[in-house]
Amino acid sequence: MTQFDLLGIGNALVDVVAQSNDGFLTDQGLDKGGMMLIDPDRASQLYAHMGPAVESSGGSCANTMAGFASLGGNGAYIGKVHDDVFGTVFRHDMTSIGVSFTTPAAGDGDPTGRCLVLVTPDAQRTMCTCLGAATALNESDIDADLVQASAVTYLEGYLFDPPEAKKAFVRAAELAHAADRKVAITLSDSFCVERHRDEFRALVEQHIDILFANEAEILSLYQVDKFDDALQAVRGHCEIACLTRSEKGSVILSGDELHVVDAEPASKIIDSTGAGDQYAAGFLYGYAKGRDLATAGQMGSIAAAEIISHYGARPEVSLAKLVQEKIG
Amino acid sequence: MTQFDLLGIGNALVDVVAQSNDGFLTDQGLDKGGMMLIDPDRASQLYAHMGPAVESSGGSCANTMAGFASLGGNGAYIGKVHDDVFGTVFRHDMTSIGVSFTTPAAGDGDPTGRCLVLVTPDAQRTMCTCLGAATALNESDIDADLVQASAVTYLEGYLFDPPEAKKAFVRAAELAHAADRKVAITLSDSFCVERHRDEFRALVEQHIDILFANEAEILSLYQVDKFDDALQAVRGHCEIACLTRSEKGSVILSGDELHVVDAEPASKIIDSTGAGDQYAAGFLYGYAKGRDLATAGQMGSIAAAEIISHYGARPEVSLAKLVQEKIG
Repeated sequence: MTQFDLLGIGNALVDVVAQSNDGFLTDQGLDKGGMMLIDPDRASQLYAHMGPAVESSGGSCANTMAGFASLGGNGAYIGKVHDDVFGTVFRHDMTSIGVSFTTPAAGDGDPTGRCLVLVTPDAQRTMCTCLGAATALNESDIDADLVQASAVTYLEGYLFDPPEAKKAFVRAAELAHAADRKVAITLSDSFCVERHRDEFRALVEQHIDILFANEAEILSLYQVDKFDDALQAVRGHCEIACLTRSEKGSVILSGDELHVVDAEPASKIIDSTGAGDQYAAGFLYGYAKGRDLATAGQMGSIAAAEIISHYGARPEVSLAKLVQEKIG
Repeated sequence: MTQFDLLGIGNALVDVVAQSNDGFLTDQGLDKGGMMLIDPDRASQLYAHMGPAVESSGGSCANTMAGFASLGGNGAYIGKVHDDVFGTVFRHDMTSIGVSFTTPAAGDGDPTGRCLVLVTPDAQRTMCTCLGAATALNESDIDADLVQASAVTYLEGYLFDPPEAKKAFVRAAELAHAADRKVAITLSDSFCVERHRDEFRALVEQHIDILFANEAEILSLYQVDKFDDALQAVRGHCEIACLTRSEKGSVILSGDELHVVDAEPASKIIDSTGAGDQYAAGFLYGYAKGRDLATAGQMGSIAAAEIISHYGARPEVSLAKLVQEKIG
């Protein structure tokens, strides 16, 4: 028996979300729809020019953990915040949904990381991330007992951006495997894959049991143009690969098994950001509960459909209830 | 000529909004729908038990200033934040909409004030305010040049709760009148009126040119049961009194003038909190632009109708555009 079904490790961020427009993105030299890393000076400068904003806890992996908790899963999280107001907010939002989060806050150095999110009238989100305290996550934050006590350790690809976090990432994977636990990863975004392609490929082939990637990410990983080529390339390279394709649903590969899972119809499509995080939450919940891969994939689709029906990257209703209604 | 049409002085707060339910309110001993003051220990204890939350700038008067700016008005704000993350957020949100906000942040003492808002499934909001740094607002923060440069100084009744802020309030009113400017006040809420009834009555009779009060507040101020009795009591006690009555609209009194202004039909009614703040914004904008009292009241109704059509206490669309469409 393990204490936790899932341990997530990621960049702990607070989202700062403001309405914007295409002209502003152009003026600021921002790639619409992308996620770019910015330093604190640039973050201050950009924030000063942004409109009024709303703050809420974010971070890709942390959002997955929120979905996992909403499904009824028993989860823990490792990530680095600063001992400041946003750090308090992040910790509150994590623990108040029942996710164990005990990584000590940094007492000095950069403030808690934030993601400046600019929403254009076409509902696209352009994200500028200032990692802040998240860059201070290091190997010493990887609680060996916690990794060993968790059935699956789930890592976000974005962790490859801060150098020390990357070391923490590898340490966590080693600890998990030494304890005969599973290691899962999401590639996070196609630009992140480009920044770290060789390392990601080596990882997938050597250390990863469960891989999550969307179409752009898996194409970038294998530098191919067709989805089917990417699918053939990844096959056999990790125990389970979950490839998500937005409205086309997902494809799940495991040895000789192959499942093509339909997307769940969404009540409305307001904001597609965060769908991948919730797909991972749903799939990993199904996996933790011993459901077959196709059913776990459907749980991922259900969680993703909920998140795209509203603004914001964390579930607004009980995912456990939705899954109960649709799957039982 | 004055530099600013409106100077608002209020408690600078960040709203921390979480979904809740009646059972939680009962367990925590909270009066549903009310606003209560809590100390930092109680705030920490309550926050620890609340669900995940979303943060955004708030404060009654600050919300009015946001509406005033959205209408196209030229405004300034005085309020006290701490030099912390929420203080930075509050200042950003104010200045990014074009409201001048130069009150220095406190470098020591309590953190930036916050209002813990619990939203129940019936869309009612129960507010617990920890004033924090707002209690540090004092007479020295009242910039005499700024008051003299503003056509109207608008004060929120909630300022009577922190003792030093009350002195700042009186100082601002004296400076404004000495410079032949107008002084406006909102009574803020009926419990606030109960806490400070005698002082409010003296103020209204001696210092206030423009009074805003909702039905519960004006009944409490004069300790009467009928709206018409309150109306007769306030008549002649200040230059202009705007009495708001939710779906019944508003009544505006000024000398022999009396206007009964209909509520503007709202596209939908999601959350009635903040309607009074936006009514004041609309009325004061019309007043600043030299519109007649009935038209100024209609502007108040339009601004209030916008705010109750969504969650959140600040306008989501341009109020200037709405007023242009409906009044011209």
